[in-house]
Amino acid sequence: MSLQKLKVAFLGPLASFSHQAAAESFAKTSAELHPHVCFADAFAAVQQQEADYAVIPCENSTNGSVVQTLDLLADRSDLYKDVKVCGEYYLTVHHCLLVHKGSYPGGLPSYDGKITKLYTHPQAWGQCDKFLAKYFKGVERQDVSSTSKGAEIVSKEEPGTDERGGAIASRFAAEYHGVDALEENIEDRADNTTRFLILRNILADRTAGLEFEQPNVPNGGDAQLHHEATHKTLVSFSIDHSSPGALANALLIFKAHGLNLTSINTRPSLKRAWQYIFFVECSRTPCAENNDAVLNALNDLRGVTESCRDLGTWKDQLGVSII
Amino acid sequence: MSLQKLKVAFLGPLASFSHQAAAESFAKTSAELHPHVCFADAFAAVQQQEADYAVIPCENSTNGSVVQTLDLLADRSDLYKDVKVCGEYYLTVHHCLLVHKGSYPGGLPSYDGKITKLYTHPQAWGQCDKFLAKYFKGVERQDVSSTSKGAEIVSKEEPGTDERGGAIASRFAAEYHGVDALEENIEDRADNTTRFLILRNILADRTAGLEFEQPNVPNGGDAQLHHEATHKTLVSFSIDHSSPGALANALLIFKAHGLNLTSINTRPSLKRAWQYIFFVECSRTPCAENNDAVLNALNDLRGVTESCRDLGTWKDQLGVSII
Repeated sequence: MSLQKLKVAFLGPLASFSHQAAAESFAKTSAELHPHVCFADAFAAVQQQEADYAVIPCENSTNGSVVQTLDLLADRSDLYKDVKVCGEYYLTVHHCLLVHKGSYPGGLPSYDGKITKLYTHPQAWGQCDKFLAKYFKGVERQDVSSTSKGAEIVSKEEPGTDERGGAIASRFAAEYHGVDALEENIEDRADNTTRFLILRNILADRTAGLEFEQPNVPNGGDAQLHHEATHKTLVSFSIDHSSPGALANALLIFKAHGLNLTSINTRPSLKRAWQYIFFVECSRTPCAENNDAVLNALNDLRGVTESCRDLGTWKDQLGVSII
Repeated sequence: MSLQKLKVAFLGPLASFSHQAAAESFAKTSAELHPHVCFADAFAAVQQQEADYAVIPCENSTNGSVVQTLDLLADRSDLYKDVKVCGEYYLTVHHCLLVHKGSYPGGLPSYDGKITKLYTHPQAWGQCDKFLAKYFKGVERQDVSSTSKGAEIVSKEEPGTDERGGAIASRFAAEYHGVDALEENIEDRADNTTRFLILRNILADRTAGLEFEQPNVPNGGDAQLHHEATHKTLVSFSIDHSSPGALANALLIFKAHGLNLTSINTRPSLKRAWQYIFFVECSRTPCAENNDAVLNALNDLRGVTESCRDLGTWKDQLGVSII
């Protein structure tokens, strides 16, 4: 086994929420984190084994599924055939109001009303509506390409100027760009959470035998704990559109093998309009009786689907909500 | 019945693809078409009976579902409780290269290479990749807020200037803004189609008894044809997450009543993270035996779901693809 550090791809820019998710999920390792400008680049890095892992957003508890990720997992052109999900990470989205370092050492109570412009990503304004309405009504707002970019702008302000800016971004971005958090947790909704998938290449020797949670410790971890944890599996399939009830039949196969459904998504097949690729995620608590449940379900699914692909199995990090 | 013209709400701006869909689907009537700046405004106009109908995009054959429309149909705050789907319209997305009126009366063969700037909505560049690579490699591109806006910019060009612009937009936008189509059907993919839903208020006297296809002709149309056409029904529901197999059980109910599934979508419930509202669309060819199939299925669904809502039944305009 190589002694090189693990390489982890994330969706850029630096200090983005994806960067934070990668840093936190690989916190116990000395992994190198590499930004990628688009989802496809991060997938390609894993397929070509330039990265050992990729950390990719797949779903937000308020906004729903991330379709770019589903489209890459659909892999209609067989570009990422060795990329599978091996883990997940849940990141709660907390926003802070950030200001140039040293502007208000006393935090929000010492704020003198002098901020004339606010910066953040368009989506974040709506997530902090109440706070902004209370303290920053009428203050000019400028959209920027990422929350991290807003923190960067504020970090580069000239101290002498009359124009003072504020940025809405994460504490992670504040630390990265060296700015102060005037106030934390300014979001309206405390439970806004993004789920990230962790991908690896199933042919890569460096990672194939490792538990994701401790990717730099071969055969590490507590075997008892692993046995009791719930496992999730993601499967994609397409069905024969001339056969009524094909989707219901496919879902019954999961039930027959004791696999609980946890999510279902569809994307256009792009072969014919109004036909779909289905993504079904299911869970089970491993035990002697269901060791082969996923394998058997996939075998049965191949009998009722046009195509069917196992996209990986990993340990549930949250406690699943079954459907 | 009032003699006032029908009012139809669409998603603006003027000459958008939604405007075109509204104009084409109400072509046989003398309806007034009214632009609305956002999806919620169009829904509200129907709920408040300021509009008789609304024409709303719900799905694109390449990009998938329109989540804003699903979120409004989910109606988590009971704002649009009388709004139901009563029809659908399929619009194939064709793009043209538009130029100032009279610039090139001979069309593309007379083009002299003088266009220095192109305008369109960010999504349209990717849809016309091959044409642009062949004829407009290296020409400056400017993103605008809608394809219609690009056509408007080109229509207002001063004829004398050296700077000539081209816009990528629909023939409908060309006619609306009075510009010429240098070339038509420049899109890479000929089958890129958007499906629009047509909404009405079920309590509105003016429209409640009318067939959508001829909304200004009470009791009009050919009864025989209506009887044979496939009908689609949209249902939303949420399920008890403590009961394994709840989704499979719900889908089996459709099958048991002879209703073929045609699409399934999910959106976050926003009550609890990772729980969902399901949207199931099903179809049947009406006959004496299945007259009450939708009613009976809804009754059964209420037994296995937490909440369940009938979002309307309408005539299939395409020929369904069942799942």
